[in-house]
Amino acid sequence: MNQVIGSQSISFGVSPYLISSGSVVGSKESEGPLAKLFDMASQDDLFGAKTWEEAESNMQKEACILALGKAHIPPEKVRYLFGGDLLRQGIATSMGIEALQIPMFGLFGACSTSGEALALGAMCVAAGYGDYMLAVTSSHFGSAEKEFRFPLGYASQRPLSAHWTVTGSGAFLVGTEKSHIRISGVTIGKIVDYGLKDSQNMGACMAPAAVDTIMQNFKDFGRKAEDYDRIVTGDLGYVGQDILFDLIKKKGSDIRTMHLDCGMTIFDQKTQDTHAGGSGCGCAAVTLAAYVLPKIKKGEWKRVLFVPTGALMSTVSFNEGASVPGIAHAIVLEHC
Amino acid sequence: MNQVIGSQSISFGVSPYLISSGSVVGSKESEGPLAKLFDMASQDDLFGAKTWEEAESNMQKEACILALGKAHIPPEKVRYLFGGDLLRQGIATSMGIEALQIPMFGLFGACSTSGEALALGAMCVAAGYGDYMLAVTSSHFGSAEKEFRFPLGYASQRPLSAHWTVTGSGAFLVGTEKSHIRISGVTIGKIVDYGLKDSQNMGACMAPAAVDTIMQNFKDFGRKAEDYDRIVTGDLGYVGQDILFDLIKKKGSDIRTMHLDCGMTIFDQKTQDTHAGGSGCGCAAVTLAAYVLPKIKKGEWKRVLFVPTGALMSTVSFNEGASVPGIAHAIVLEHC
Repeated sequence: MNQVIGSQSISFGVSPYLISSGSVVGSKESEGPLAKLFDMASQDDLFGAKTWEEAESNMQKEACILALGKAHIPPEKVRYLFGGDLLRQGIATSMGIEALQIPMFGLFGACSTSGEALALGAMCVAAGYGDYMLAVTSSHFGSAEKEFRFPLGYASQRPLSAHWTVTGSGAFLVGTEKSHIRISGVTIGKIVDYGLKDSQNMGACMAPAAVDTIMQNFKDFGRKAEDYDRIVTGDLGYVGQDILFDLIKKKGSDIRTMHLDCGMTIFDQKTQDTHAGGSGCGCAAVTLAAYVLPKIKKGEWKRVLFVPTGALMSTVSFNEGASVPGIAHAIVLEHC
Repeated sequence: MNQVIGSQSISFGVSPYLISSGSVVGSKESEGPLAKLFDMASQDDLFGAKTWEEAESNMQKEACILALGKAHIPPEKVRYLFGGDLLRQGIATSMGIEALQIPMFGLFGACSTSGEALALGAMCVAAGYGDYMLAVTSSHFGSAEKEFRFPLGYASQRPLSAHWTVTGSGAFLVGTEKSHIRISGVTIGKIVDYGLKDSQNMGACMAPAAVDTIMQNFKDFGRKAEDYDRIVTGDLGYVGQDILFDLIKKKGSDIRTMHLDCGMTIFDQKTQDTHAGGSGCGCAAVTLAAYVLPKIKKGEWKRVLFVPTGALMSTVSFNEGASVPGIAHAIVLEHC
């Protein structure tokens, strides 16, 4: 029996399985610390396409096909697909997954979208709405620069608080078919706005949302930090992590020993010139798929809280002087 | 017991109720045929704000507050909110519903978003994930022109196939509390792409998706056109309606006698210079809230299929020569 617990969470009665995943990345990611773990790494960041947007769509399609292929499940067996990306009107997703012809829900949660998609996928499986659901997200350095920072400044320096958008797409098959990873619960985030307006410091904008959702997860599930082997944020980066630790400490908790940030894990800050770390919907998704899930599968980590965070902004809202609120969704992943 | 039926639909065991709705529109809408039916009409299209985007956010907040107020439900009783709009990175929604502090899922389904949000809200209530869910969408003529057609051409004529984006927001409270309208089932749409590339002819781009979802609904539920008192599309307009009728006829069905298009209903084509009709997320949402739901409530219409359609495109995908695929989600509304 599924249980609605606390004010924002669901604990699944029969937990859906995270059956398989697919990870596709670009050239820079394939030179980073996780290089050998990805399913597919392309040296051509255009992925055979003519535009960055089409390249991102191609990655999404490949990631979905990989996740489906590993589980030997054809697309027509997938009941619903949940997907989104960072681009205006989510075109990377629409164009990317079109060929699969799976009934779909388009999402936008900025870089928290992998959490949003996994949550809805798991909720639908646990509700009996289908045996297989697919969750997919992506980001691409080229399309993101064009979306958010075009026209690019001539030789302007990126501040150290800026992130490097990951070129990557991660897809996840969630369902009733047994695997060694279960999604045992979710905590859905609220919008958290500390009034910050610096779009070149996303870590600071998103950290309060991560704190809010993590603390709510502890409260709703009656857990503490030590009940998780790892608490994995999406792309807070070096700046955001400091803020995360400080704010959590003020709330009387400490997650320093079990915290891992995908944005700090996917690139080597010293040699790859990525400043605060990786970011983008793809950052959390491919790090989860390639690095985190295998450790849960092997039982090295028994229980992990996956908390991707999103910065809710556009170039229009930024130019109009609006703040950059954050949102974070938490997914409880357990070895079984 | 909820039933997963056919390949894309769900029939709810204990159907969630559509408890209340809120509709907020701008000045042009308040001069149209439905003028007196909206909950709130502003003569100031800026809704007291300084930008079109903020104006749209204000509408969303007001629509939510109206829907909640009518049902005497405070925001903290709403478990999850499902919302989206047409703007890049969905900022109208993020900024609009922030103050409500309801855990939220951001959506993007272009003008099909009201269907997507109602579907997910109903699915969550039927799954027992909460007693109240809120679904909200919006569009604004000013923010949409800026998003999709900026810089505006000097005195260039709009083709007759072009739509007029509705300034409006509709919010819907879905839950377990008894009302006279039930959501008895949903059919989730696939992306349908006929390869059309004319963003000034959205009706043609979206009609094939409406056909696909309507025929799938008939098939999954074992129904025919006559089983519905009305089949309500979102914003196919005059051009799209012709295509809809032709394509449905080719599939052996005829919906001419019970079809209603929100885009053709909200404006007076002869006097309001709106060409193919109204469009935007807000078009279907406010027409549903102000015109369709009261008729179901009174029992004038016993069973209605609400099928908002979305055109999946951005200025980037359009400028890159990509086609404009469509998607449509269907919601079965019944008098009770």
